[in-house]
Amino acid sequence: MEYRKLGKSGLKISELSLGSWITFGNQLDTENVKKCMKEAFNSGVNFFDNAEAYANGLSESLMGIALKEYRRTDLIVSTKIFWGGNGPNDRGLSRKHLLEGTWNSLKRLQLDYVDLIFCHRPDPDTPIEETVLAMDYIVRNGLAMYWGTSEWSYEELDKAFKVAKELNCIPPTMEQPQYNMFVREKVEHEFNLLYEKYGLGLTTWSPLASGILTGKYNESIPEDSRLHKFSGLKNNLKNNGLLSEKNIEKVKKLTKIAKDLDMKVSQLSLAWLLKNKNVSTVITGASRVEQVRENLKASELKNKLNDSIMEEINAIIY
Amino acid sequence: MEYRKLGKSGLKISELSLGSWITFGNQLDTENVKKCMKEAFNSGVNFFDNAEAYANGLSESLMGIALKEYRRTDLIVSTKIFWGGNGPNDRGLSRKHLLEGTWNSLKRLQLDYVDLIFCHRPDPDTPIEETVLAMDYIVRNGLAMYWGTSEWSYEELDKAFKVAKELNCIPPTMEQPQYNMFVREKVEHEFNLLYEKYGLGLTTWSPLASGILTGKYNESIPEDSRLHKFSGLKNNLKNNGLLSEKNIEKVKKLTKIAKDLDMKVSQLSLAWLLKNKNVSTVITGASRVEQVRENLKASELKNKLNDSIMEEINAIIY
Amino acid sequence: MEYRKLGKSGLKISELSLGSWITFGNQLDTENVKKCMKEAFNSGVNFFDNAEAYANGLSESLMGIALKEYRRTDLIVSTKIFWGGNGPNDRGLSRKHLLEGTWNSLKRLQLDYVDLIFCHRPDPDTPIEETVLAMDYIVRNGLAMYWGTSEWSYEELDKAFKVAKELNCIPPTMEQPQYNMFVREKVEHEFNLLYEKYGLGLTTWSPLASGILTGKYNESIPEDSRLHKFSGLKNNLKNNGLLSEKNIEKVKKLTKIAKDLDMKVSQLSLAWLLKNKNVSTVITGASRVEQVRENLKASELKNKLNDSIMEEINAIIY
Amino acid sequence: MEYRKLGKSGLKISELSLGSWITFGNQLDTENVKKCMKEAFNSGVNFFDNAEAYANGLSESLMGIALKEYRRTDLIVSTKIFWGGNGPNDRGLSRKHLLEGTWNSLKRLQLDYVDLIFCHRPDPDTPIEETVLAMDYIVRNGLAMYWGTSEWSYEELDKAFKVAKELNCIPPTMEQPQYNMFVREKVEHEFNLLYEKYGLGLTTWSPLASGILTGKYNESIPEDSRLHKFSGLKNNLKNNGLLSEKNIEKVKKLTKIAKDLDMKVSQLSLAWLLKNKNVSTVITGASRVEQVRENLKASELKNKLNDSIMEEINAIIY
Repeated sequence: MEYRKLGKSGLKISELSLGSWITFGNQLDTENVKKCMKEAFNSGVNFFDNAEAYANGLSESLMGIALKEYRRTDLIVSTKIFWGGNGPNDRGLSRKHLLEGTWNSLKRLQLDYVDLIFCHRPDPDTPIEETVLAMDYIVRNGLAMYWGTSEWSYEELDKAFKVAKELNCIPPTMEQPQYNMFVREKVEHEFNLLYEKYGLGLTTWSPLASGILTGKYNESIPEDSRLHKFSGLKNNLKNNGLLSEKNIEKVKKLTKIAKDLDMKVSQLSLAWLLKNKNVSTVITGASRVEQVRENLKASELKNKLNDSIMEEINAIIY
Repeated sequence: MEYRKLGKSGLKISELSLGSWITFGNQLDTENVKKCMKEAFNSGVNFFDNAEAYANGLSESLMGIALKEYRRTDLIVSTKIFWGGNGPNDRGLSRKHLLEGTWNSLKRLQLDYVDLIFCHRPDPDTPIEETVLAMDYIVRNGLAMYWGTSEWSYEELDKAFKVAKELNCIPPTMEQPQYNMFVREKVEHEFNLLYEKYGLGLTTWSPLASGILTGKYNESIPEDSRLHKFSGLKNNLKNNGLLSEKNIEKVKKLTKIAKDLDMKVSQLSLAWLLKNKNVSTVITGASRVEQVRENLKASELKNKLNDSIMEEINAIIY
Repeated sequence: MEYRKLGKSGLKISELSLGSWITFGNQLDTENVKKCMKEAFNSGVNFFDNAEAYANGLSESLMGIALKEYRRTDLIVSTKIFWGGNGPNDRGLSRKHLLEGTWNSLKRLQLDYVDLIFCHRPDPDTPIEETVLAMDYIVRNGLAMYWGTSEWSYEELDKAFKVAKELNCIPPTMEQPQYNMFVREKVEHEFNLLYEKYGLGLTTWSPLASGILTGKYNESIPEDSRLHKFSGLKNNLKNNGLLSEKNIEKVKKLTKIAKDLDMKVSQLSLAWLLKNKNVSTVITGASRVEQVRENLKASELKNKLNDSIMEEINAIIY
Repeated sequence: MEYRKLGKSGLKISELSLGSWITFGNQLDTENVKKCMKEAFNSGVNFFDNAEAYANGLSESLMGIALKEYRRTDLIVSTKIFWGGNGPNDRGLSRKHLLEGTWNSLKRLQLDYVDLIFCHRPDPDTPIEETVLAMDYIVRNGLAMYWGTSEWSYEELDKAFKVAKELNCIPPTMEQPQYNMFVREKVEHEFNLLYEKYGLGLTTWSPLASGILTGKYNESIPEDSRLHKFSGLKNNLKNNGLLSEKNIEKVKKLTKIAKDLDMKVSQLSLAWLLKNKNVSTVITGASRVEQVRENLKASELKNKLNDSIMEEINAIIY
């Protein structure tokens, strides 16, 4: 496992990491959460990603139990605040929800502080000043080491940096965007100035495009797949164009390249993401220990992606 | 129930709310406080207003007991600091009283923090810098989420915003003015620039003009009414012109309109207040559960106040 | 008793107050400390002055015991930091001593915070920036409500205000200078700009010029007097010109005026100090309950000092 | 023992002090740590230097036990953060490691705060803004009284001061450089502007150039010496030119001067360091109580180094 700087910050983060999204509390119980985290940790993963919204807080509770077996300083633990419940003040980036959400997440995680805390989405209903002051409060009170955002636009982030400077607040350190072979605009173009100007780090999610890049939908949608179980997810993917025939065609071509390199197409996809130096860590998900092991091999396998192979891949996915 | 933003802030507040003023600890004991709050909460009220001065702190103690039955994040609880006792430093907006008052209110409320904290009146004896720094201290120490003022003038508020900026302090979010059909100047004219420039929110009090707008004084002052019991209150209302024959005449005309719309004049009065988009919430009081229910219906009933009816009403009260 | 604002601040302080200097722990044991404080409190005194240096901390311990009988909000309690022991870092205004001194004083006083905390002297060995940042830390951490200085010069105070502004720190609120009929330069001339520009408040000490203004040394130095017991004190007073024949002559003339007004010369002296509107409070000392009572009468008696009597007095003491 | 100001700060530090480096936990067990510290303290030493890296934290644990016998205010205790373990975030000057390192050091030392905390080396991987904000956090949260650096360059320190000013953070107070007769460039030239401009204080280490200036390597490397035991150390010294024949020649000449002055060459070397007024304290190490005693005599002996002897010495070591 290699470690990268989280943007310009001094934090060293494993280039592959483990997220609790979808799996913890849904597909994984306490024992399997522990096993997957142990597998990841033993492979060098030091970042475990979470959010108050995942499984309505159960992901945090499960991770909190599992974390007891580790030294705190070996871990980078995150949470994200935005969807904390159904009440009018249980969501969004108001000072009230940011603070209450953080306090409650820390209780579920059984931690004094998280390392990374994210504003899980932009909130047009809350002035950026209020959000920046609240995040600054959270960091300056020792509840988190660094704060960042998730799925914010260039303009929203640029504004946040400017307001932080103006109010003498600690600025964001990282953003968590979706990034995979089929969703590249933000990471590869929109954010370019942010890396340069502010040293923004990236913790990316959905590396396998909801599983499409595993090749498992190459022929049809298997009965036991997530897509099958959650029809909303499938419709979403179809509507936003991710699960298209064109994309399935691309995956088939990538599968061939992967095979030639003696790896799975999912590993190829992860390895390809790691070639982007602006990515600090690629958050992977897994519902089985074997999947964790398989995914994390991408750290080594990325060395097989030389310039000519990268060209080949990029020709396919453009 | 509809929820509104508290000014430009990210907080969502029910457009009708329940205040403890006069009733808690005077007309309502623990059981009835609980019942009124439950009725309000079940109707969608999330804001419960209080002050250290109300019933000499007993209002807070009673509300504190009742609050134990709720999830903290579902509630917006306030207090106001200014009159905390008879000693020379038990009142006003000095750093000493603001901090001691807040600490003592939180003890009575049995809370770690309130959501809203108000400077209950302006204090010409204390420099605005001292007050702004103390309120900033209260917010930055997690004792309150937002701070505001009550019955401050445009000039005083404008000064507070400027001083907050100058001292890098958190500015006020809301003001609590008196606002009803007979007292309109501040909310409708004096404060206009404050909404625009600073996004000031309003939590308004005395929506029924001390009961005059319920129509119960249309004929005479009933023996069991508050006005009868508290002669000081009556004299006050007469002196400041609120309880005048001219106003009683207006109430009679409004009562007729209300009847035509199949509502009470008190409901018409509350609904009329809700038509003002600069009002974040109208604080209502009640000494009986039925009254709570009746008042909160105004949220729905406001839809009956179309443009022509509003014109009719405004012609009467101008 | 009248209450005055502490300079421009919002704090209301009794114009006469009780200090522990010399008496607490030396002439007064626990019971007598309690009695003197009770007498003062019952006469309307709300300010009790102290310092870590007084009786090597015993003054604070005794006052701490006595304070348990009062409501915290009724009291203004002070301490002063500068001389906390014999070690190289037990004295002065370094960050280390200011913080350690404050923590230790609060333990002796058994309080969470004092209302007023003073830098007991200027410290040429410590940069003013370090001192201002440490005092700001003390106030912003809730260990004191207001900070000030004692026996600082105009230049030192002016510098402190400027540095506080520059570093965005809370500025001093009050100064504690010596002030009596024979020591007037600082309060009446040197500090004039400070009242105007910064609203500096004054808590003055040595109102009776080490007892000279009681008239008890008019004939000779009594065997049971403090001056007799502490020969260092006597030499001091002689060296600095305070205990001079010229001054004794003046006291004799003042005694005559006092007699005509049916008061003691000590009361006349205290009353005269109260005529200065820049004085927020005159700190008195006492070794007997009767003395407390006698001194505090000066608050009423000051009304006897009309313009012509003030002229007469000023003609004598100039 | 004489006390000096730590740079321009108000802290008074003994000009000779005791460090735990190499000895505590390696050559000294609990009892001998206690004895050496007692000897030093009784000779007037008030500064005890430490670091999280020394003996992997054991130095701090041992010093923590020994410190229980002293009054906290009599002591200046330091630690240094940089090397806290082997994990990717156990080292360097990231916010995460600085805070976690400090919390863990304080636990081992069994203290609420240290007086001095150092960034043990510069960290090119962490932006200076992140480090300055984290050190400011540590001081403003009462975990340390003053912060500084160790082995930073002029440029790095100058940048830290500028960034501290820009972010309204507390600037560094002291630097801990290597300084002895053979390593003089930084202290005597590179840092000159820092003393003047910022009042930087120095706590210097390696006063005897790893023992070379004791004269014990004048003939050969004794079997029981540190250099013999730790071959890595010896190679280091040879590679960086410290343990050269030229230097041994100089030590021999210095030994002669020392003998004439009736002192050891180690004492001469320490005394010579004390003649530099920019040095706040010289940190000495010792593996035996007698050595502590011997070293600390340098404080008196420095008076024997008059101008002509200083000239003689400087002629030898230039």
